[in-house]
Amino acid sequence: MAVITFKNVYLSHASSVVGKLEGEGPLGQMYDLIEKDAYFGKETWEQAESEMVRRTVNLLLSKAGLAEREVELMLGGDLLNQCTATGFAAMTLPSPYLGLYGACSTAAEALMTGGMFVESGFYTNAVAIASSHFCSSERQFRFPLEYGNQRPPVSQVTVTGTGAFLLRNAPAEIQLTKALPGRIREAGITDANNMGAAMANAAVDTILRFFNESGESPSDYDIISTGDLGREGFELANELLSKCGLDLCGKFTDCGMLIYDYNTQDVNSGGSGCGCSACVLATLFWNKLIKREVKKILLIGTGALLSPKTVLQKQPIPSIAHLVAIERV
Amino acid sequence: MAVITFKNVYLSHASSVVGKLEGEGPLGQMYDLIEKDAYFGKETWEQAESEMVRRTVNLLLSKAGLAEREVELMLGGDLLNQCTATGFAAMTLPSPYLGLYGACSTAAEALMTGGMFVESGFYTNAVAIASSHFCSSERQFRFPLEYGNQRPPVSQVTVTGTGAFLLRNAPAEIQLTKALPGRIREAGITDANNMGAAMANAAVDTILRFFNESGESPSDYDIISTGDLGREGFELANELLSKCGLDLCGKFTDCGMLIYDYNTQDVNSGGSGCGCSACVLATLFWNKLIKREVKKILLIGTGALLSPKTVLQKQPIPSIAHLVAIERV
Repeated sequence: MAVITFKNVYLSHASSVVGKLEGEGPLGQMYDLIEKDAYFGKETWEQAESEMVRRTVNLLLSKAGLAEREVELMLGGDLLNQCTATGFAAMTLPSPYLGLYGACSTAAEALMTGGMFVESGFYTNAVAIASSHFCSSERQFRFPLEYGNQRPPVSQVTVTGTGAFLLRNAPAEIQLTKALPGRIREAGITDANNMGAAMANAAVDTILRFFNESGESPSDYDIISTGDLGREGFELANELLSKCGLDLCGKFTDCGMLIYDYNTQDVNSGGSGCGCSACVLATLFWNKLIKREVKKILLIGTGALLSPKTVLQKQPIPSIAHLVAIERV
Repeated sequence: MAVITFKNVYLSHASSVVGKLEGEGPLGQMYDLIEKDAYFGKETWEQAESEMVRRTVNLLLSKAGLAEREVELMLGGDLLNQCTATGFAAMTLPSPYLGLYGACSTAAEALMTGGMFVESGFYTNAVAIASSHFCSSERQFRFPLEYGNQRPPVSQVTVTGTGAFLLRNAPAEIQLTKALPGRIREAGITDANNMGAAMANAAVDTILRFFNESGESPSDYDIISTGDLGREGFELANELLSKCGLDLCGKFTDCGMLIYDYNTQDVNSGGSGCGCSACVLATLFWNKLIKREVKKILLIGTGALLSPKTVLQKQPIPSIAHLVAIERV
């Protein structure tokens, strides 16, 4: 069966570090650290992102009362070429490391892969992490910030943020219960400024497969959230789900629409990036679970597996959506 | 315990596709396909690499008599920005996909991660794959080929090759028995033309940890091979191991030294790239296991987690080495 059922994987702690724009957004009170200096005290955007990752892990371990050497495995990634933001941060830690690349779906990929290592019984804990930084991403995928280029309304803002989770085999209040790896879909979209539309197809594919294969229904969940479709992609996903006859019973939302305030923040279609779903899960969703406001959450991490080169070569944008189910024990 | 012991993970089939230079090397007779056109019939180096990956998976499935839709999970990666060589190839397949980034250690990372999903019992099979292409890598990491730049003697040649493995929970002649994820090490090396030296430290760290934690000794294995240290890195690793008092009993070798002929091929320090260890495992080591010439192999996949940007920013080269043990049943 394709849907993975974890029996013994708990999320004991979460931490998040974000930039100024995210700190000014609706979840501002919930982040562990808001850094107003986009450079995080470093000399380059890439080093800034690594420093953000490092601080997020430190905060996670300090919340959990765990020493660095007690971390048995770290898994994660980011959007930078060769995943260097996470790699350079992991270099400062003594634990083994598995680099993942799922574009903006990396948080869900890290949770499911880390969950597998903890479920196996070989590891008692693992840190799952995902990160993105607006400035390093703009330079990487679009234009240097200094160009001041205009962005179309369907474009999204890459979240400056890192979310980290401590997976453990010892019971805790929040449990990782299910996972479903995504399949790569492409919808013929070649516009790198419209990634929500490219990813909507993949999100719908994973959601349909999950309910089909798990035997569960949307009414079993309190929140069903995609990672970073933004307004444009979310509308398309809604439309596609309706056409396929699946009613998400008003539970459907998107981390990219929750992380910023459309009325007061200039974010076009919404948030995106590996840090988007990681930070919303580590704050808003986490708090709702802890406060018993919700019991079961489905997170469908969405990722666009393009590179600047494939865009220049006029290739379509392959997209993927990895699903994890998280539950209040 | 950090060393993972698999009870129920078998490698039923392997396949490999390489370029002209690799085909002319000492393992030339063993590859499934040698493509003399570096473009693999495509228009760009990046698309060529994707096509190579696609062909390797096709060959694997045809050897195994498996239809594409029967593959339950594909895991792997490559050296390109945002791992697009593998992503675009996976787009043509109907199976779920997990993107990994371990630089040249990706084959070992894919085997151990895929092994975990198969061992769990949720998946009956998984395809582990790793790929690199000399031309796409040169453009990515160094200079466009048209520059005709000179390379120093310690530099290595990125292998044009893809190796794929079918992991199954049903008994087969070859078994994946153990795995150990690597820790990131850095040896203060900032020269991107000397990656063997950068990675030697990580390889030694993983080898020492493995024998320390597993209770096994080098005499338990017939071949102990690093992934792509090349002559320079291999000598350094040998020296470091001696200093640490570990004698590998003449079993120690390196895929980067086995894939080319130093006497007749102009390859400086040897082969490198994700495809290097993947292709040597899928051919030379695979055949030795099948023919019962050897019984137990340790592969220590080595990876340099740098990017062209971190090199320009004068950062040291973080390296990692993931270990897998493969055994004739």
